[in-house]
Order: sequence, then structure tokens, then C-alpha cells
Amino acid sequence: MNKNYIIPNEWSIIEDGFDAENVEASESLFSIGNGSMGQRANFEEDYSGKTFQGSYIGGIYYPDKTRVGWWKNGYPEYFAKVLNAPNWIGIHIKINETTFDLNTCKISNFKRELNMKEGWLSRSFQATLPTGEEIEVFAKRLISVKYNEVGAIEYQIKALNFSGEITFSPYLDAGIENEDANYDEFFWEILNIVEGTNNGCILSKTLKTGFHVATAMEVEFAINGKSVEVPQETEIAEKSLTYTYSLTVAEGETITIYKYGSYVSSLNYKNEELIAAAALNVKSAKELGFKTLLQSQIDAWAEIWKTADIVIEGDVKAQQGIRFNIFQLNQTYMGTDARLNIGPKGFTGEKYGGSTYWDTEAYCIPFYMATKDASVAKNLLLYRYNQLDKAIENAAKLGFKNGAALYPMVTMNGEECHNEWEITFEEIHRNGAMVYGIYNYVNFTQDFEYIPKNGLEVMIAISRFWHQRANYSAAKEQYVILGVTGPNEYENNINNNFYTNYLAAWCIEYTVECLAKVRDLYGADFERVMAKTNLTDAEINKWLEVSGNMYFPFDEERKVFLQQDGFLDKEIIPVSQLPKSERPINQKWSWDRILRSCYIKQADVLQGMFLFENRFSKDELERHFDFYEPLTVHESSLSPCVHSILAASIDRMPKAYEQYVRTSRLDLDDYNHEVHEGCHITSMAGTWMSIVQGFGGMRVWDDGVLNFKPQIPAEWKSYSFTINFRGSILKVYISKNECKFMNESDSELKLFVNNKEISIPSNQLVTV
Amino acid sequence: MNKNYIIPNEWSIIEDGFDAENVEASESLFSIGNGSMGQRANFEEDYSGKTFQGSYIGGIYYPDKTRVGWWKNGYPEYFAKVLNAPNWIGIHIKINETTFDLNTCKISNFKRELNMKEGWLSRSFQATLPTGEEIEVFAKRLISVKYNEVGAIEYQIKALNFSGEITFSPYLDAGIENEDANYDEFFWEILNIVEGTNNGCILSKTLKTGFHVATAMEVEFAINGKSVEVPQETEIAEKSLTYTYSLTVAEGETITIYKYGSYVSSLNYKNEELIAAAALNVKSAKELGFKTLLQSQIDAWAEIWKTADIVIEGDVKAQQGIRFNIFQLNQTYMGTDARLNIGPKGFTGEKYGGSTYWDTEAYCIPFYMATKDASVAKNLLLYRYNQLDKAIENAAKLGFKNGAALYPMVTMNGEECHNEWEITFEEIHRNGAMVYGIYNYVNFTQDFEYIPKNGLEVMIAISRFWHQRANYSAAKEQYVILGVTGPNEYENNINNNFYTNYLAAWCIEYTVECLAKVRDLYGADFERVMAKTNLTDAEINKWLEVSGNMYFPFDEERKVFLQQDGFLDKEIIPVSQLPKSERPINQKWSWDRILRSCYIKQADVLQGMFLFENRFSKDELERHFDFYEPLTVHESSLSPCVHSILAASIDRMPKAYEQYVRTSRLDLDDYNHEVHEGCHITSMAGTWMSIVQGFGGMRVWDDGVLNFKPQIPAEWKSYSFTINFRGSILKVYISKNECKFMNESDSELKLFVNNKEISIPSNQLVTV
Repeated sequence: MNKNYIIPNEWSIIEDGFDAENVEASESLFSIGNGSMGQRANFEEDYSGKTFQGSYIGGIYYPDKTRVGWWKNGYPEYFAKVLNAPNWIGIHIKINETTFDLNTCKISNFKRELNMKEGWLSRSFQATLPTGEEIEVFAKRLISVKYNEVGAIEYQIKALNFSGEITFSPYLDAGIENEDANYDEFFWEILNIVEGTNNGCILSKTLKTGFHVATAMEVEFAINGKSVEVPQETEIAEKSLTYTYSLTVAEGETITIYKYGSYVSSLNYKNEELIAAAALNVKSAKELGFKTLLQSQIDAWAEIWKTADIVIEGDVKAQQGIRFNIFQLNQTYMGTDARLNIGPKGFTGEKYGGSTYWDTEAYCIPFYMATKDASVAKNLLLYRYNQLDKAIENAAKLGFKNGAALYPMVTMNGEECHNEWEITFEEIHRNGAMVYGIYNYVNFTQDFEYIPKNGLEVMIAISRFWHQRANYSAAKEQYVILGVTGPNEYENNINNNFYTNYLAAWCIEYTVECLAKVRDLYGADFERVMAKTNLTDAEINKWLEVSGNMYFPFDEERKVFLQQDGFLDKEIIPVSQLPKSERPINQKWSWDRILRSCYIKQADVLQGMFLFENRFSKDELERHFDFYEPLTVHESSLSPCVHSILAASIDRMPKAYEQYVRTSRLDLDDYNHEVHEGCHITSMAGTWMSIVQGFGGMRVWDDGVLNFKPQIPAEWKSYSFTINFRGSILKVYISKNECKFMNESDSELKLFVNNKEISIPSNQLVTV
Repeated sequence: MNKNYIIPNEWSIIEDGFDAENVEASESLFSIGNGSMGQRANFEEDYSGKTFQGSYIGGIYYPDKTRVGWWKNGYPEYFAKVLNAPNWIGIHIKINETTFDLNTCKISNFKRELNMKEGWLSRSFQATLPTGEEIEVFAKRLISVKYNEVGAIEYQIKALNFSGEITFSPYLDAGIENEDANYDEFFWEILNIVEGTNNGCILSKTLKTGFHVATAMEVEFAINGKSVEVPQETEIAEKSLTYTYSLTVAEGETITIYKYGSYVSSLNYKNEELIAAAALNVKSAKELGFKTLLQSQIDAWAEIWKTADIVIEGDVKAQQGIRFNIFQLNQTYMGTDARLNIGPKGFTGEKYGGSTYWDTEAYCIPFYMATKDASVAKNLLLYRYNQLDKAIENAAKLGFKNGAALYPMVTMNGEECHNEWEITFEEIHRNGAMVYGIYNYVNFTQDFEYIPKNGLEVMIAISRFWHQRANYSAAKEQYVILGVTGPNEYENNINNNFYTNYLAAWCIEYTVECLAKVRDLYGADFERVMAKTNLTDAEINKWLEVSGNMYFPFDEERKVFLQQDGFLDKEIIPVSQLPKSERPINQKWSWDRILRSCYIKQADVLQGMFLFENRFSKDELERHFDFYEPLTVHESSLSPCVHSILAASIDRMPKAYEQYVRTSRLDLDDYNHEVHEGCHITSMAGTWMSIVQGFGGMRVWDDGVLNFKPQIPAEWKSYSFTINFRGSILKVYISKNECKFMNESDSELKLFVNNKEISIPSNQLVTV
């Protein structure tokens, strides 16, 4: 596909001119969603060119039978996949006798816009059909944030050079397949197709998981803006429902079809209520009308942007990039439902199963925590809390005992989905991220009560895991953790990964610290949790024996912690000396060669320095950054942001900016030639962190104090962001010369800027 | 299935009484073959019970599209599978109107025998059909060693309690599928079905590989032993050819059908010659007649046993076990065709792809070398020599340069078939076995000329691989080999596996030693090889820099070489302390738990001690045996034999015998509950080694001297074996009190017994 075809614009993603080569990429980039449902920017009308159709409903998945080369004990049988859901957007259109298909038309003035400020998608163009009819089309679509089971389409056709007949056949199609189905199975069963006048509904059920989903549509028509009733013909097929309406049009006239769609599912309704609920949704939507829905959408997004926006002066592409990231994160997860999470592709594609990864805890929580109400981040924590039993089962399958938990690498419902032994069984550092997420949340929100009520049980189960997973090395006279894969997945089955060992020891220490505090302050909760988990002081002492005597590989000569045992046996040659033709190494090299090389996929030791920066001196940070960053190939979308933040932290702004650029327009500029498969959602939170934590230097450690260390890339005039800090809205403006803090709350805010305490009175602006 | 149902017998495998539960196991155990083709012991007549049908032709394979969970660069696209070939043994039989099917009959006096001395399979029984007819059946079958494209069946039915009609429908069925097809594909295309009178032929072709195979049959009948002509009806279906013959029988009469079958393939003929060649084969077989074919079979096996037999006095089960192993090895590989090799299941099943593993070099060559003409072992070496180009391509795919070769882990045609990165890319010690095979062959046969003519090119390419695969560790100031899997596959992606490093250094040293000798003695060959490989002294010196400074992990306290870096970080708990319920660990534990445990699947450091025993002191051998054997779970069929031999070598006969017992009746007693899938052919060579090299203590190191150190298990009275030593037949008899050597050749033989030289004159017996 063509790179860089997106027109720079501060608030919109714009495609100018039609190129069939860009269709699949644009379907990803122009995706729309509301956290509960979403869809790729597929065309409403027929399109015979290359396209990747996708509509998704949050929390609705299918356990696809896993595909494996060589089975290993402990592998899960199923890979839970985000399900491609019934299509409600489709409208077959005929102009006189000719099917309208952009792939067969001459097209001019094609413009596609994703308006991020207002939350809608539009297309406009003129098309000449093979039979000569010229039409002008304007289509606008939204997935409502306010009415989160509803979407709406306004689709206008103007007859430019003819009078005749235009036939619209809006339809529901439940015969949808997943592109990534392992065995080409169809995942749905169609239960009922209900017809009506201008409205209809299909009730379908996912096989195996038995989720019931009703998909409804409602249509209305206008000629030159005036509502009209049109006779309807109905066609019911095995898996679809199609209505056909023919309208006579005179040259110069415009016909508009409004189509309202809705998904409702058994996640939120009883099965028998679904058809009625969906029908009511589309009826209400039609009664409100497209204009009202659009206005409510504009209002809802204005509310979101109030606390989420980042403004960059002097760099339109950077501005567009960061807003695209923030927009997609909000489209993917709104935070109102603890059963949902942030899939790596959100609602923009199927890849990676659409499930939950440790990305949520390590990368996404900071974004949602700082731009939304605390309840949003809490819902993300509760998601894991609610899956604790499954994590304990998962650990038991691998031989762990006594309520130890291992959270899955990839999951939809708490069960492990992944099946590569070196990841599934060995990339166990993810378990530490679960506890870090709690720690981070409590520091930022000061909602310590989450720990006695929920978090402590998770922390105990994870501490138990680490205690059992470590073993005493008689040779080292310390505890070791053997056979792991760190965040750098270019090393497998290694011993004593610094990051994993460090996180393991920290998890135990933090758990024990919290246990003491809960014992003191929340006696009843303490008793409840101790009874539920059968935890004893003797067991806690065994944990501490492990955490207090954990081995960390260290090189005395360089004074750096080593990524793992034996790291210095490798040939250490910086990435800069690798020929371009050999990169990315994950495409050019065989796996064994990658494994025995010194090259690092994403931050590993440095991930530890990032998470626990407050425990290392600046000297140490610099030394480790200088040793590891030159060996890092950044072949994960999660890599550059961490390095950007660390570089800013050690005052290396050019390096910080270089890494920031890599992350911020990853999808818009399609660096990895894969945006047609969907967007990289979770790394978008890393982009946000690169600005707020990186350039802005925002930190909240366990003293609960809000810190900033503002810096600005040479390329920018200024930037500003907003955070929701414990209910107070704080706007931060940073330019080359000054730094302003606007406290939009009703109470005074204290914070540290460059280690100096300042106080910002209620509703006041302070310049530093 | 029932274990231990095989009746002990010195020369035969016998099943007494019919049990449907044993059918699939017996189909494996009673398999017959002649090195060129073979088949499971499927019934000739219909059988509606559980059965696993299998007929195989050496060298005919199909590249089945590989199945993989997560693709890694460098994986092969295809897994070459041994092909289930058209069935020529089948005969549908009707007694009056009733189909004869053992699964629906009352059966008595059922006896199945595999006569290993004479090389035939038989069944006899009485059966009562559901409709009341009683018959007596006697069936005998052989795959001819002398006429190696031919098989023959004699099938007799006696009408015990009725007069009526018996209908025989002998058929050829080319609609055969592989049970282990990855995507349930059919691997054959049927090209032509040729009918005739009492004979017929199907020409078929393998898809993708395009091997052409003609399968022919010819039938004749006799009543009460007198030849009769019977009218024939013909049915040609899409993939099969069936003739039907009805014979009237009076009570007490016996009808015999003789069916002759043949495979001929494009390995040995032009495609257009195949039908005629197959037809000629079955016509000639019929002219010879079953009795003559049987006599030639008895003669051929007598010839094989002359040099291959091992006689054990005082233990019938041990006697049966060792003969079964020797018999199956001969059925699998006769050594006359350098395009064939020894599949892990031989002609007894489909599993593991029927391809070539390092088992051939490490386990099988000693057996074939000592029991057959030197040309047989040489053919096994030439198999690899002929695949050198593919091994160089394989290494190039993984980034190696300059003609370095990596032989595949699993192959049919020289291309790698396996697709697990930790095996395919990392279990590289196999490359060393290729050179060891040459070394072993040259020592035993003194055919040094093989090296200048063929072996040297292989050795150079492999030395190049080791040179490139090692890297200099600045930390250790020695060369290291990172990221490997040793013979103990319960460790993956480890660093500095002692066995691999040792073998790598030795490969280089031996290659350089041979280069010098070739330069001196075979100047022309030397020039040719140097020119062909572009080898320079400078490159050789770089190799020696690596081999001379190779790092071997060693524990100073225990004075043992360590299996790999970090081995002593593990919890070292002997297998004897593992609860029985946790074993075999490969069924009870998840893969990560196995990996981080100290448990060893098969000899690893000890594999090195076994191959290079002459380079270690007895003290060293004992120390390593005492450290590693207690940690070994022997969960590979290749494990016990090596430990048995080493135990004998350090005078631990009870341990040696314990390990011997594990290997010798592995299939007959179905230790692993999997014999229904086929027999473990390559480990059978290990059983032979356990006696000859283990108890008998036979060794030939690079001084070319033949050594024995005879010992005998307490459980045996005596044992004797024969070896073909450089064309001389030497019979060795060992009892508790004495040891006899019979030199059946025309020249004197010198050898060492317990380090004392003795001389055995031509055709003389010497007692020691």
C-alpha cells in the first residue's frame, strides 16, 4: 500500500482521492467504536475490490480450536477470538439496473474523513457508473457514545445526469466469518430472523460460548430532505434479511436513506428479551433522528476531550498523531464495564484474538487513570480480580499449589489462550504487572481501600506463585528463577531474567507491606482475606526468604544488571552496525539466530528501570540505558515509548523525541506495513505516556506526590495536556520558555515541578 | 490393550487366542518387510473391528503441508511422510451369502505366528459365521527378501460343517489414506487400472512428489491341493480393481487361494515400464509358486541370521526379545540401496514421518556394520553424502555461509522436515553424529578411502558449521556455543551443552587430522576436494582456534562436566525420589516444569562419554555416571542402551542388565502403551549394542584394534553373537566360566580380550 497518504490535519484523519490499494488500510484507520462495539470503516454499498470486513461486539468471543505443531502438556485447547459480528451497515444499491460498486466506477473528488473531535466518519465523492449514470454521494456514520448499543448512517445520493430509479436494499447479514478462523469454521448459529416494516432483526448465537446477539436495523427515506414512505419488498435468506426499496429520482434530486443499527447481547439482557431490546433501540434511534444522534455524539466527544486532549503547537503531524492515539483508545475502552478490556487491535481487526494482554496493566492503566474518573482504571483492575479463580486454576495446571495464581498471557474470560510454551508457560513476568497495576493505581488515586477489598487476594495469589516458582540454587546460595521469557521475547527459556526476578521480589515485598497496612487499618478485611486464603505468618516468612535472597545477575566490570545469566557470552555488537538489509531481524533471521544474538525486541532490564525508576540513581539509569538501548531493535510497538520516557528522564531529549516519533504515527504512517490488519491500540497508550510522563515528566510514586519535570522537543513550540488528578482537573501547558499549570478544580493542588513544591489555588493558573 | 500377551518362544512371535483389543498391537508386532517394502500384519479378509491399515514402499514419500501453531522464520513448509501405499493383500470372502469378518465370528484355536527364523507370518483358526457355517482357515504370508518387489499369500479355507459356495474377491485398493495426514488430504492420483485374467495392476502417482508406483496382483486357486481354473468377474472402481471367483465346496474340502503381489516404482524404473514390470513380477512369482518362494525366503533369512544372530541360553524371553530386534532391523533396512534409510517406525507404522534421524549414525550403523558387509554401512554414509548439497542449503537458510552444512533433524530427501525451533534449529549435535558415523565406520572397517572419496567433503562442511556456530565469549575468554538443545530434549535453548561443544571441537580436530592424512596419501583427492570446497589453510587455522579454545562447563567441586551452563542452579533431586504418580514426567508435567527440572530424558553428557569412552578415565566415567544416571528418566527409547553399555564398561553388571531389560522388550511388552502405532525400530539397534558392546565389551577405536571385555548378566547361562569383522566371520561365545572365539575366516584374527592380545588362527576356536 501507499504510505503517508493520510492528509495532516489537527482534528481529522483525511484521505483525499480514491486508491483501491488503500482501502484495507483505511478500513483500519477510519474505524469507529464506542468501547462497547465497533467496526472497521467498510463501505455501506457493495464493493468488489479487496476489503476486510469487520464488526465487533465487546466481550463476545469464540473459543476457536487451537492450531499447534507439536502439542505440549498444559497447552490450552482453545484460543478465544474476537468475533466478527453480523453486519448491520450494508446497503446494496442499484442505479437503474446497475449495481453501484466503487470498484467499477470512475470516481472523482473522493474524500474520507474521520472527525475525531466529533466522533463520526464520512465519505463524499462523485461516481460515474459503467452504464454512464453520474451520482454524488455523501455518507456519514457514527457509533453512538451516549446510546452505546446504537449506530447510525446517513447516506445521500444525488442524481447528477439522469432521471430514473434508485434501488436501496439495506440488509442485515449474519453469515459473517472470521478471516483468522483456524479451521475455517463458521462461529454462529442463526436462531431467528424477524421482519417488520422498515425494521428487522436477526437473533444469532455463538457456537460453543452460547452468547446470544440480536442485530437490528431500522430505515427511513427522504427525497430532497423531505421524509417519504417507500414500499418495501422483503427477502429472508438462511442467514440474512434484506429489504428492497425503489425510488424514482429526477436529475438533480437527492435521495437520503437513514439506517439505524443496534447490537444487544446476552451479556446485558436475558436471551428472550434481546429481539425486543434491539428493536426498541433502533426505533428510538429513528425517533431521535440522525441529526440529534450526531449532536449527542459531538457533545459526548467534547466531554471526553476535555480531560484527554493533548495540544501540540508547531507540528500538525504530531498533533494529528497524538489525537489519533487518544481517540482510538477511547473508542476501544470507555471503562464502564469491568467485563471488557483493551484488545491489542481494539475494534479495528481480528489479529491476536482481541483479548487481554499485560499491555493493559503496563501501558494502558496510566492513560485511563489520568484522563478519566478513577472508576475506569478500577474496572480494569476488577477485570483481573474477577478472573482470579481462573488464574489459580491456570497455575494449578502447571503444577503450582496452594492457591498460587498465574494470570494468562492472552485471555478473554480468564483462561489462557496462547500456546507457545516459551510464552504461555514462561513469560511469567506478566504476573508481576498485575500487582504493579494495583500499586500504580493506589499511588495515583490514593484509593488504598481497593487493596483490602479486592487487590490483596490477587497479590497473595501472585506472591505464592513467585515463592513457588523460584528455587534455591546451592551453587549461587541465592534464589533463582529458571526457564523464563522476559519482555524481550527475543530470548526464550532463559535463567534469571533481571526484570522477572526484580519484579518477583518486589511483588512479595509490596504484598507483605500491604498486608501489614491492611492488618492495621482494615482489620475485618484482613481477617476475611486471611481466612479465605489460609495465609499464615509462616508462609509469609517463606516468601520473604525468597524475596530477600533473590539473585540478580550483575556485571561488576560494567556495573550493570544483566538481562539474564550468560548475557555477556554473546557477541555484543550495537544495532547501528547491523546492515539495514538484515532488519527487521524478525523477518530476516531464523529464530535461533535471533535468540543467540544480543538484540533486544523491547525494553527488558530497562522495563524494570522504567517501572521502578525511583529505586535507581540517575547514574544507574544512564549506565543501563547506554548499555541496552544500543542493542535494542524496537521490533515491538511497545518498545519506543518506554525508551522515550527513560531518555527524557535522563535528559536526552533528542533520543526521547526520536523514540517518540517511532511510536506516535506507527499506524498513520504504517511503519510496519500491516495497518490493513488493524491498528496497534495498546501501544497508543505508550504514546500518550511518552508525552505526559516522558516530556512532561509526570510521576506519582508511593509517597503519592504529583511530580513534573517539564521538557519540550526542539521541534515543538509548545504542548499541553490535561489530567484528572484525584477528581481535580489540571491543565499543563509547556513551551520552550515557561510552564503553566491551571487548576480547574475547587480545591488547592500541591505538586512538585523539578523537585520544587508549588501550590496551585483552586481555579487559578500558575506559571513556572 | 493387554500387555504381555506374546507367547515366549526362541524363534517366533506368537499370539495364542483371539482378542480384538490386541489387533492393532499385533498388526505392528507381526509386521513383515524386506528393506524395500513392508506392511503391517493386517488381515487379508474383511475386518470390521479396530484396525490400522498400513503398507509402505521404501523411499516413496509425500511432503505433507506442515501444521504449526506460530510460524518462525526458517521453518520448512513440508513434513515428508512415509506414504501408506496401495493395498495388494486384501481378499473379500463370502461363505455362501455371508461376508467373512472375524469381528462377527465365533473364533477358536486362533494362533498367529511371526516366524523370524524363516521370515513368514501365519494365522490359523476355526471360525463360526453368524449364519452358522464353520470354517478352518490357514493363512501364510511373506515379503520376499530374494525377489524384493514381491510378496505372496497362501490362504486356505476348509468347510467344516457345510457344503456350499465360497466366494473370493481378491482386490487392489489404491484409495489408501494416511492416518497422520495433517489436513486429511489424499496423497495419490490414480493413473491407470489394468485388468487381465487372474491378474491386474493399478498405476498411481503421488501428488507433489510425482513418484509413480505400479501395484500388481496375480491369483490362482486349488481345491484340496489341486490347481483349478475359476471363472472371473471383474469390477473396476475409481481407485480399486476387484476380481470375484465363486467356488463350490463340499463339507470337509479345502480351497486355497494364492495371491501374489508386487510394487514397482519410478525409483527403479521408467514410468512407462512400470505396469509391465509389475505384471512380470507377479507372473514370475506365480510360476515359481508359493512353496518355492517360501523356500527361497527360508534360505535368505538363514543367510542373514548367519552373521546377525545372538543366542541367549537360560532366558527365553530375552532370546525372543533380541531376535525380534535383529529381525525388525533387517526387515527395515537391507543396505543395498543408498537412497533408503532406517525410519524410526520402519514399515510398521506412519508416526514420525518414517524419515531419517541421527539415530542412524549414533545407533544403527554399529549394528549393520558388524552384522553385514561393509558396503551396507557405507551405503548409510553415502545417503548423507548424497544429501550434502541440501544440508548446505539448509544451513544457508539459517544464515550460515561459505558451504557450511547443517544436516536436518528429520528428513526423507535431505530437506529438513521438522518444525519446532528448539529442535529444528537448535538440536545441532546431530551434525556431529554425521562425522562420528564416518569415524566409526573407518575404525571398524579400515576403509579409510571412504574419506578422500566422499567423507571429507561432509566433514569440511560440518567443521565450517561448527566454526561459524561458535562465538567468542569475551566474558569466558573461550569459544561458546549458545542456544542449543542437546540429546536430552528436556532442556531447550541452553548454552554450552557439554556434549555439543565436545562433539563440535572433536569434529574439527578429526577433520583436520583426516585432511593431513588425505594430503599425504591421496594427493589427487586432496586437490579435488580443496578446489571444490575452496578450503584454505587460513580457514583451517580459524577452525582450530575454535576447537582448541572451546569452553566446557565443569564443576570443580564434583569434578564433573556440566550438561550446560547453569545446570547446578537447579534443584538436584534423584529420580528415585520422584513419586511414581508423577511419571513419566512428559505426560504428567507441563513443559516448563520439565525444562527447569534436573531430569534428563536420555544420555547427554553420558552420550559423549559413550562415544568417546577412550578419552576418559574409568574414574571419570564412574563419576559422571554416578552424577547423571540417577537424574535420568529414560523417557526416550534411545536412553537405556547407552546407560547399559556404560554401566557394563564400569563393571556395574546389575545396572547394565536393568537397563538392558528396559530396551530389549520395549515393543513386545509394550512398555509405553503405544505399540499399536508401530515398533521402535532404531532403538532396536541399541539393544543389539547393549549385548555386543555392553556385555561383550566390543570396541574398535582409532587404532583399529578389536577389543572385547566379556561379562555376563547373572540371569543368563551364556550368550553368543557373531560379527563380520573386515570380511572375517567371528563367533563369540560367552558363559559364566569361559569365553570362546571361533574364527570362521581363512586368515588369522588378532584381537584383545580384557586388554590381552590373542590370536585366533583361521577356522579355529580359541577359549579364553
